[in-house]
Amino acid sequence: MSKRRSRLWEVERSLVDVAMGRAKADLVIKRGTLVNVFTKELIEEVDVAIKGDRIALVGKADHTIGPGTLVIDAEGKYLSPGFLDGHVHIESSMVTVTQFARAVLPRGTTAVFIDPHEIANVLGLEGVKLMLEEAKGLPMKVYVSVPSCVPASFPEFETAGAEIGPAEVEEAMRWEGVVALGEVMNYPGVIYGDEKMHGEIQVSLKHGKVVEGHWAGPIGSELSAYAASGVSSSHESTTKEMGLAKARLGMYTMVREGSAWKDLADVIKIITEERIDARRVCLVTDDRHPEDLISEGHIDHIIRRAIEEGVDPITAIQMATINTAEHFNQDQDIGSVSPGKFGDVLILDDLKSVEISVVIADGKVVAKEGKLIEELRPPTYPSFAKNTVRVKKRPTPSDLEIRAPIDEGSVKVHVIGVLEGKVNTKHLVEELEVREGKIISDPERDLAKVAVIERHKLTG
Amino acid sequence: MSKRRSRLWEVERSLVDVAMGRAKADLVIKRGTLVNVFTKELIEEVDVAIKGDRIALVGKADHTIGPGTLVIDAEGKYLSPGFLDGHVHIESSMVTVTQFARAVLPRGTTAVFIDPHEIANVLGLEGVKLMLEEAKGLPMKVYVSVPSCVPASFPEFETAGAEIGPAEVEEAMRWEGVVALGEVMNYPGVIYGDEKMHGEIQVSLKHGKVVEGHWAGPIGSELSAYAASGVSSSHESTTKEMGLAKARLGMYTMVREGSAWKDLADVIKIITEERIDARRVCLVTDDRHPEDLISEGHIDHIIRRAIEEGVDPITAIQMATINTAEHFNQDQDIGSVSPGKFGDVLILDDLKSVEISVVIADGKVVAKEGKLIEELRPPTYPSFAKNTVRVKKRPTPSDLEIRAPIDEGSVKVHVIGVLEGKVNTKHLVEELEVREGKIISDPERDLAKVAVIERHKLTG
Repeated sequence: MSKRRSRLWEVERSLVDVAMGRAKADLVIKRGTLVNVFTKELIEEVDVAIKGDRIALVGKADHTIGPGTLVIDAEGKYLSPGFLDGHVHIESSMVTVTQFARAVLPRGTTAVFIDPHEIANVLGLEGVKLMLEEAKGLPMKVYVSVPSCVPASFPEFETAGAEIGPAEVEEAMRWEGVVALGEVMNYPGVIYGDEKMHGEIQVSLKHGKVVEGHWAGPIGSELSAYAASGVSSSHESTTKEMGLAKARLGMYTMVREGSAWKDLADVIKIITEERIDARRVCLVTDDRHPEDLISEGHIDHIIRRAIEEGVDPITAIQMATINTAEHFNQDQDIGSVSPGKFGDVLILDDLKSVEISVVIADGKVVAKEGKLIEELRPPTYPSFAKNTVRVKKRPTPSDLEIRAPIDEGSVKVHVIGVLEGKVNTKHLVEELEVREGKIISDPERDLAKVAVIERHKLTG
Repeated sequence: MSKRRSRLWEVERSLVDVAMGRAKADLVIKRGTLVNVFTKELIEEVDVAIKGDRIALVGKADHTIGPGTLVIDAEGKYLSPGFLDGHVHIESSMVTVTQFARAVLPRGTTAVFIDPHEIANVLGLEGVKLMLEEAKGLPMKVYVSVPSCVPASFPEFETAGAEIGPAEVEEAMRWEGVVALGEVMNYPGVIYGDEKMHGEIQVSLKHGKVVEGHWAGPIGSELSAYAASGVSSSHESTTKEMGLAKARLGMYTMVREGSAWKDLADVIKIITEERIDARRVCLVTDDRHPEDLISEGHIDHIIRRAIEEGVDPITAIQMATINTAEHFNQDQDIGSVSPGKFGDVLILDDLKSVEISVVIADGKVVAKEGKLIEELRPPTYPSFAKNTVRVKKRPTPSDLEIRAPIDEGSVKVHVIGVLEGKVNTKHLVEELEVREGKIISDPERDLAKVAVIERHKLTG
């Protein structure tokens, strides 16, 4: 499992040998109905022959079967490319890359495009490297975007644990597995000429990498300006209009349905109502809590949601496979079941409900009926990556006391109103009780105190 | 005109400045109906602001207009990306790159993907370089594939003027403007394990380049084997079934409509009858004679032909713009009218008849109403590129005499039957008159003698 994946040029000859029957396949899937993400067709009676970690043939494969070939009968079932998550922060699932893979591989996710900006906020580039290193041995492919906005905001708002600028981005662009600059959240910086943001974008483009976007601003000239900088995607659309504006400028519109933010019902209308070409629309999670991964699923869940909203199943699968692969220029390796690509194939019992019976990754069966076949080796981390929450003292309830200008009675307070499943919040003013000069939380009305504690520099 | 084109990372900041109105555009096209090749929509009342050679904004552009801005009113007209020819041998037009540009720019072709294997057959890599060098100063962009099959056949069939192998391919892969390995015509070599062909494919893939195909063989396992090698396109389909088989394997199906070969009427049925997703279908000419360029046109003609056959105009334009750009991984520069891309924009009077009134390339108006605005500088060639037809003696009619076994009467002869507009030929046997022991041609029945004369090594 820790064997390095092949490059096509290293193995193409042996794939040709298998397709021609001069050598035998390691694995043949027989007589499935192929979800063809190129032509948007269902094609019946298709065999797939795999040699090593790549697909040698798609068609009729009897001549590639030898005594050592594992044959899986897929009659009456569907064959889909492994699902891709085009934008996810694994740290938001509060687990390691390995644990994440354990949860999502049985759900059919065979590759993820991660932006490890949470670990980078703590450990800088070294943290990004740790994620890459851990990922190397996994049957789930991990493609990395170098975080562009570390720290995420400005010194006025945040005490940063690390900083990443153009020089660090340039260094990381040379690492294997790095495919993009991570979401450029500082979009005001881009349109108003921030040196650091432009520096990072420029070195990324120069290295031929994709620049990932995050645009939550207006959809007029400013969005054009953002796109002109070279940013070519955005997962930050909460309405049909925002999604449409980005798609029309050629940005990949990533439709997000995670745990905290659920934009699909609105944004998918660019397909179901506006009927635009879906070629530059992808399905992504952004953030996904562990309990949701277990109970609802991962990309399989979003595909189901898209189908529920009226998207036809093949288009929904395109949005979670070939479209994402093309955006990141990885379609020579992933995103389709076709000759030369990695053997990442799902066998589905049903297309509309996306019921996955077998998950094949790198040409090996890794999960069956929702369960991993072989346990993944737990990762080990160096000591510098542990115990990074450094606070001056353990917080106590009294640290959260808020003094009121009166002793008893009630006062008006500012409240950050959460909009369920949305990234935006609402400014509310509510009445809260005061006792002994202190403002009292009201769990009944879901009014709680929140605090940010500095955890990098022992000042919090 | 000989100014080097910008890279996006060099100019992105100035594009952002224009989009935000902090700097002014050089050219603004106002109120056109945009052919949106991403979303497959027509969008009305769209302005396009261009700075230097790239697009800064697509939307409302009044704030980008300054005293020095050229404004073109496109009300009631259509805006399309410049057309791309995804596979063409300029040598087959029997003119220089400059002359070719003169003919096709007014027809809306702003970029061509050339495979200069004819000049390479004579001059080797040096010939390829000459084409690249000549192209540099032109307003038409020229992307080069390194010829993979030089010589085109085997020593038994052909006396070669030059040879290109893996080492030469590797050298050329480092040249600016080289984007692919040229059509791998030796498909038997690929599927039967020819060292040279695999060597060339491997170095091309290693350099991250596209490998162009040419498959005229059967559509079963052999085609899978060919695709598994890394070849990702084929323009050599003469039937719907051939086109479909390639598209289903994820190869870009290039629908060819040139001068010698006219495959569109049959192959376009993959769209009009099979209704497949057109994302990996492109329109190409392959070979185009000068008189046809002048009388019928170039890619504009093929788009018209596709529309005549029932393809909707936006899909037809996608097949000649964004699809081709994506295949060659050049969509960050060409293939769409969107921020950051080169200012290659066509203003069309009518969509269905593809009537082009203005051609803008690199942000400059280069043609109007079918005429170039400014003459292109004639190229100069080094002496080694001239007088390359070296024959022992000037051919005379007696060289074409064919002796018959009888003196007078008639004999049966083998005839290569031409199938009008098709690449295949037919083996015919015809009766021809014999006079004084010589077989006589019959122009009435279009039966002529043909000969191949060795022209490289003074042996012919």
